[in-house]
Amino acid sequence: MCPAPVSHDHDRGFIIPIGGGEDRVKEMHIHRKFLELAGGSEADIVVIPTASQLESTGPDYHEIFTELGAGKVEFLPINSREDCNNPAFGELLKRATGIFMTGGNQLRLSTILGGTDVAQTIRRRNAAGIPVAGTSAGASIMSEHMISGGDSNSAPAEGAVSLAPGMGLTNAVIIDQHFTQRNRLGRLLTATSHNPFLIGLGIDEDTAAFIGPDNILEVVGSGTVTVVDAGKLCYSSLWDAGEGEALSLLGLKVDVMGEGCTYDLSARQAYPPDNQANRFCSLPAVKLDETDDKAAPG
Amino acid sequence: MCPAPVSHDHDRGFIIPIGGGEDRVKEMHIHRKFLELAGGSEADIVVIPTASQLESTGPDYHEIFTELGAGKVEFLPINSREDCNNPAFGELLKRATGIFMTGGNQLRLSTILGGTDVAQTIRRRNAAGIPVAGTSAGASIMSEHMISGGDSNSAPAEGAVSLAPGMGLTNAVIIDQHFTQRNRLGRLLTATSHNPFLIGLGIDEDTAAFIGPDNILEVVGSGTVTVVDAGKLCYSSLWDAGEGEALSLLGLKVDVMGEGCTYDLSARQAYPPDNQANRFCSLPAVKLDETDDKAAPG
Repeated sequence: MCPAPVSHDHDRGFIIPIGGGEDRVKEMHIHRKFLELAGGSEADIVVIPTASQLESTGPDYHEIFTELGAGKVEFLPINSREDCNNPAFGELLKRATGIFMTGGNQLRLSTILGGTDVAQTIRRRNAAGIPVAGTSAGASIMSEHMISGGDSNSAPAEGAVSLAPGMGLTNAVIIDQHFTQRNRLGRLLTATSHNPFLIGLGIDEDTAAFIGPDNILEVVGSGTVTVVDAGKLCYSSLWDAGEGEALSLLGLKVDVMGEGCTYDLSARQAYPPDNQANRFCSLPAVKLDETDDKAAPG
Repeated sequence: MCPAPVSHDHDRGFIIPIGGGEDRVKEMHIHRKFLELAGGSEADIVVIPTASQLESTGPDYHEIFTELGAGKVEFLPINSREDCNNPAFGELLKRATGIFMTGGNQLRLSTILGGTDVAQTIRRRNAAGIPVAGTSAGASIMSEHMISGGDSNSAPAEGAVSLAPGMGLTNAVIIDQHFTQRNRLGRLLTATSHNPFLIGLGIDEDTAAFIGPDNILEVVGSGTVTVVDAGKLCYSSLWDAGEGEALSLLGLKVDVMGEGCTYDLSARQAYPPDNQANRFCSLPAVKLDETDDKAAPG
C-alpha cells in the first residue's frame, strides 16, 4: 500500500523502525523517546502484538509503557483477519496518540493486517501526525516494499532476498533489522539493487531510526543504522545473474551511523551528531599518488 | 615493511590475496590462474606453509600445483625464525617463479618471517616481477598494514580490529578474508577508518583479487571482493569513541565486485566485467522527489 495522503494543516507522524533486541529492562531509551513523541503522561499507546504468537507479548509491552508513565496503554489481540473488523479495535486506534508493532514474523503481520481497516487506520493515523514504531518484524513491515525473508550470512546474490508488499507508511526506504547481528548486508544490498530509488536501512539490534515528518532520520540506540544508497549505482549484474550467483554492485554509497547521526532522506545526505559534516564533505578523495609505495601513510 | 623498490626495466609481479576456502579439488580456478602467471609448465613454485601448524599443509599444496602441471614445486618447512636463515630456502626463493603462502594464523606468519631474509627475498622477488599469492592468513599478511585479529559479527566499533605490520608487498590496501562468511565488514570498516588512505579489500572465500603491476585488480572466484574506499569519508567518530562503542563512518564508497570486475587502485574506480561502467557512471543520483509518496517506484 502507498502511504495515506498527509493533509496540509499538519505533518505526518514519526515513523520509527527498531532493529529488534532493544533494551526493555534498563534505560529503555528507545521506548522512552517514542513515548515522549506520543505525549508522555498524556499518551494513549496502542500495541499491536500480531507478529508474535506469544500470548505474553501484548502484556509485556503493556507493562513497559505503563512503567514508563504512559497515560493509557492498550494492546489489540489480533490473531486473524476477522479480528481486524472488530470495531472496538478501530476505535482504540482512532484515539491512539502512538502505535507500536511488536516483533515476530512480518509475513504473519502482513497476511493478517494487509488490506484491513486496521492497516488503513494505522496509515491514516500516522498521516494525521501520530508516531508509529515497530521492532524487528514490526520494523520491516513499515515500508511499502518489505523484506519478507532471505539469506543471512550471504554476499549479495540473485535470490538472496524475498520482497513483499508492506504496510506502506513510507516508500522512500526498505528496512532490514537485526542487521549486523545476523550479517544481513548482502540481502539488503540485493534488495536495494532491485530498484536503486530505494534507500536501504540496515538497523542493528537495540537501535532505532526516528524518521521525522521532514524525512530526516535520527539514530537512537547502542548500535548503528547502515544506510545504503544505490542511487548512483554504476553497474548491477542483478538482471541477468543466475540463481545464487554473487552479484556485482558498483558505486554504492554507504553511511554507518551511530547514535545522534542524522540522515536527510530527501537529499540522501548523512550528518554526524554535531551536524557539521557538511564542513568536511568538500574534502577531495585521498589519491593513491599521495600514498603510493614510496610515501608514508598520510 | 615497505615494498621493495621496483627497478625501471621491469614491472612488479602480481599480488594475489585469496579469501580462504578456495576450491582445491574441482576446477582449482584460482590456483590455475596463479600458476599460469608463474609460468605454467615452466613454473617453479615455492609454497610457504608457515602460517599453518599442520604437517600436511605443505605436501597438500605440493600435490595441487603438481597436479596442475607446475614444472617444479617445493615447500619450505619454516617453523622458526632460525629456519629463515637456512641458505637452501633462500636459494629456492631466489629461483622461484611463483610464491604461495598458505592459510593458518597471520601472526604466526608475521612473527616467524618478519624481518628475516625470507621476508626480504619474497618482497624482492615480487618487485622483480614474480607473482606472490596468499590465502586466508597468507592474504592478510601481504599488505604493509595487516589485520591481525578482531571481532567478526560486529558493527564498526572502537577496538573491533587489531592491526600489525604485515609483509608489505603493497601499502595501498588493507586485506580481510573469509569476508562475507565471517561477517567482517565491521572490522574492515574500522580498519580503514584509522587512516582513509587505505583501500579496504574484503575478500570472500573461494575468491581472489589479482592485483596487477598496473595497480588494477581483477576478481576471480565464486564470491565477491568488497572494496571499501574511505577516501571521501566525511566524518569518523573513531578518534574519540569509547572502547566497544559503535562508530559513525559517513561517506563511504563501497563496490561489491563479482568475478571479472576490475578495480583501479590508483583512480579508486571499479569497472564491471565488460569494462563499460564509465558509460553509466555519469548517471545522476536518483532523487527522492522522483520517488516520493505520490510516485510509483521508478
